[in-house]
Amino acid sequence: MVKQQLEQGLTAVEETLQAVVKSDIQLLEDASLHIVTSGGKRVRPRVVILAYLAAGGQDVDSVIPMAAAVEMVHTATLVHDDINDHSLTRRGKVTVHARWGRTFALLTGDYLFTKVYELMAPYGAEPNVVIATACTRLVEGETLQAAAAKAGEMDRETYKQIISLKTASLFEASGRLGAWLGGGSPEVIQGLAEYAYNLGLTFQIIDDVLDIIGDPETMGKPTGLDLTQGRGVLAVAHNGGKAEELTAVAELPEPDPIQLMMAGLRASGAVEVARLQAQEMAARARRALNVVPDSPARDELLHLIDAVLERDR
Amino acid sequence: MVKQQLEQGLTAVEETLQAVVKSDIQLLEDASLHIVTSGGKRVRPRVVILAYLAAGGQDVDSVIPMAAAVEMVHTATLVHDDINDHSLTRRGKVTVHARWGRTFALLTGDYLFTKVYELMAPYGAEPNVVIATACTRLVEGETLQAAAAKAGEMDRETYKQIISLKTASLFEASGRLGAWLGGGSPEVIQGLAEYAYNLGLTFQIIDDVLDIIGDPETMGKPTGLDLTQGRGVLAVAHNGGKAEELTAVAELPEPDPIQLMMAGLRASGAVEVARLQAQEMAARARRALNVVPDSPARDELLHLIDAVLERDR
Repeated sequence: MVKQQLEQGLTAVEETLQAVVKSDIQLLEDASLHIVTSGGKRVRPRVVILAYLAAGGQDVDSVIPMAAAVEMVHTATLVHDDINDHSLTRRGKVTVHARWGRTFALLTGDYLFTKVYELMAPYGAEPNVVIATACTRLVEGETLQAAAAKAGEMDRETYKQIISLKTASLFEASGRLGAWLGGGSPEVIQGLAEYAYNLGLTFQIIDDVLDIIGDPETMGKPTGLDLTQGRGVLAVAHNGGKAEELTAVAELPEPDPIQLMMAGLRASGAVEVARLQAQEMAARARRALNVVPDSPARDELLHLIDAVLERDR
Repeated sequence: MVKQQLEQGLTAVEETLQAVVKSDIQLLEDASLHIVTSGGKRVRPRVVILAYLAAGGQDVDSVIPMAAAVEMVHTATLVHDDINDHSLTRRGKVTVHARWGRTFALLTGDYLFTKVYELMAPYGAEPNVVIATACTRLVEGETLQAAAAKAGEMDRETYKQIISLKTASLFEASGRLGAWLGGGSPEVIQGLAEYAYNLGLTFQIIDDVLDIIGDPETMGKPTGLDLTQGRGVLAVAHNGGKAEELTAVAELPEPDPIQLMMAGLRASGAVEVARLQAQEMAARARRALNVVPDSPARDELLHLIDAVLERDR
């Protein structure tokens, strides 16, 4: 029953994402549909819908625009990230940046961001404050990451702050918004927000691990990119000096040092350390659900933790 | 009395703009303050505050975040525009793009846009739908402009559509939002929205005229830029073939053809045609105020039309 509600909800989210980007300006619609229909794991809308159900929500239709909105925030940032990273592929497809050029990619990202606003506005003040805050934190995280990478000063603390801001904040908002709309008590809303925050940290650490050990074909994008950009999971395992040394190597234009470094990191135990940290965050996500009444939706939230830990793309 | 309320309100808008961009991420705060404190005519917040008062609003403090929000939308787009246009100066200062580089300019624009959201969220659903729509139109207008310039297909109809979407929509929202918060009747709200829409068209046409005839020193930015980008007021006066010919010339990298073209446009009467169109839009703005009860704030709105028509920067 809950699985069916979730799958139907996610299908409705896809339809909403595609419907909301329609525009008289054909280029904007084309570029938006290109990224919006390129797959993606849809973890955030999944969290919104399940948090809604776990908090006691009964009308899944009402949560769809909200679930679409959080995915749209994420999608908008991908389009702008790909400009800054000069990425050519994403989810196995050419990026908006590579296909339409920088100017239109920038405008497409802006357009998708205005659609977040359009989807969320009807819900009123409270949830809009929540998502506005998450959006601000996300941009702060991206900026901190870019600044740290540029300065070659990625240490463990900075890495934690970055993934908290750029990833976990939007996850947290997903849990909080769904639970709020589902009519959860303050305690349940807080529990689901904390669950989602820690799920987001888990998700990002695994993402960074996959950038090192993942198979580019399974991932649908080149691996090692984060290293090229002088950021990423290496900071989890290596302190100050050593990380900086690796970062310096990573900034060389040749691909060979990156491949060497990836091999080095795989051998160094950095990946194992990162996996342990992900498991610790996953345990926190699990504990946060203690305040949430038992239900099939809560079971699905627990399954989601395992899925995030075990994913290979 | 109204003048004093307006000036105090605009001072409070400046304070709000500066306070809301504070961030733990110093670079974002610095880059945001750089653009936010660089002056600007503040026409949009002026419209918000006066529409509020003209609709019967009594508590100017309540309209300040809203007035700051519409200015922030405009400011965010300036930062992204300067990336796409490779502009080095804006309002007599170096651009965020030129000083902090493309990546951080992109993120700063995104950040300012999240601040719009933060400022508006507490007002609830209805005004947030209004500003979300305006933001979407603005990005559509920017995209249409970039696409038309790239294709060299700027004709009179496209020009009208562009200035309606990219400029007049946000002006319209400014009038509508202020009037709504001021408690205006549906007729008064509509009148103030139409006033502001037509004021926006007037403003943009004059802006494009100033790009041709303005003094770069008074303007605080290079003139002729719109021509270099293959867009702008020339489309108002020249039909199809001729405009395209001029656009093709404008794309040459040397400054001389631009200077020649600016002189040519000044001599051709294009500027006079554009001024006549601006006066027609100004007349429509004036007429739209017929449904608004007489008041000192309404008088100020009338003065604002003249100020926009007569401005030289």
